[in-house]
Amino acid sequence: MFTVYGDSLSGNCYKIQLLASLLGVPMRWVELNILNKDTQSDSFLQKNPLGKIPVLETADGEVISESNAILHFIADQHAITGKDALSKARVLQWQFFEQYSHEPYIAVARFINFYLGLPANRREEYLQKQEGGNKALAHMEKQLSKSKYLVGDDLTLADISLYAYTHVAEQGGFDLNQYPAILAWIARIEALPNYTAMNADN
Amino acid sequence: MFTVYGDSLSGNCYKIQLLASLLGVPMRWVELNILNKDTQSDSFLQKNPLGKIPVLETADGEVISESNAILHFIADQHAITGKDALSKARVLQWQFFEQYSHEPYIAVARFINFYLGLPANRREEYLQKQEGGNKALAHMEKQLSKSKYLVGDDLTLADISLYAYTHVAEQGGFDLNQYPAILAWIARIEALPNYTAMNADN
Ligand SMILES: N[C@@H](CCC(=O)N[C@@H](CS)C(=O)NCC(=O)O)C(=O)O
Ligand SMILES: N[C@@H](CCC(=O)N[C@@H](CS)C(=O)NCC(=O)O)C(=O)O
Repeated sequence: MFTVYGDSLSGNCYKIQLLASLLGVPMRWVELNILNKDTQSDSFLQKNPLGKIPVLETADGEVISESNAILHFIADQHAITGKDALSKARVLQWQFFEQYSHEPYIAVARFINFYLGLPANRREEYLQKQEGGNKALAHMEKQLSKSKYLVGDDLTLADISLYAYTHVAEQGGFDLNQYPAILAWIARIEALPNYTAMNADN
Repeated sequence: MFTVYGDSLSGNCYKIQLLASLLGVPMRWVELNILNKDTQSDSFLQKNPLGKIPVLETADGEVISESNAILHFIADQHAITGKDALSKARVLQWQFFEQYSHEPYIAVARFINFYLGLPANRREEYLQKQEGGNKALAHMEKQLSKSKYLVGDDLTLADISLYAYTHVAEQGGFDLNQYPAILAWIARIEALPNYTAMNADN
């Protein structure tokens, strides 16, 4: 069995919880608190010198970082990574989009607003995140108007990666009512057997 | 044969040229000029609504964006994507690191300095990119002091992704002489058969 170090308030960490739950994969969860700087302790920095969670540790002591890479490690034997070369590439396309054009806007705006309580000295940064975040949501909306999930008609890792911060985007000031196809996709994911909510007890 | 739309000055686009050259995979290359806003034309936005390159188009007209996803599509049949679940996850770990913690600092600093000529109104942003860029380089240096390539002793897509902007980091104001293991790794890649330089004629 592997161990995952994470903060249950973080969407990047929640991706791992959601996938493990959907696939019924058991894991040991070690809760760290980002705001308490648990990720900056000497013992944690030895695991991940970047001081970031989530981190997966195998029974052999191998350490893997980057939420989306951890998803692939856990799902390696499951159809959920994409069926053929084209759908595998599409799954990755959405996951790189998430890390480059979605998370830096939506997760960061949420962090400033929801974790930090929108302090005055970060208000401008918060406002600057809105345009990029809405651009990312519009891009998803377009795809989800054409297909049930991001890569065709079945759930893949792309959906897990994008669901994590999209379904709580309102905590970052984004109005999801503007994106009906996204709302329908969120409802579809939440109706899956073994779905687990963010911040659920572990 | 597939077609790739790219700008030969861009590191994200160069990743595709380098991989195709190393693997001997033929492709059609369509040169676009970012500064001329070729990526914002109506015809290009129909291919990629995000207006970003590189973009790969298959013979069937399927369009794939995100440089690192395109690498996986091209390399799907080659050992270079990682041998087992653990090394596959490590390849992706480095590629997500590249897009989240390396490219937004090093490529953007290089863009401001080298493409735009360090205009006064972007000087502060340029200076702010230095710390994150050096942190990313230090992270690579640590790994490359332990292994010949980023994931063990053989070249993988992780090296292609990271080489693209690392070997031109000096154009973004980073001093590579501080990172001897990175310099040795760069020399190792440049000695590979079929290596192709950035901005080489296609
Ligand atoms: N690209 C990384 C991002 C990880 C990340 O930024 N994690 C945040 C929590 S959501 C963190 O660990 N922050 C603590 C810190 O930076 O000190 C991933 O996808 O795993
Ligand atoms: N995450 C994307 C980033 C692509 C990207 O930012 N491309 C730049 C060139 S390096 C671009 O197309 N810029 C044009 C624009 O934004 O208008 C990838 O890895 O492909």
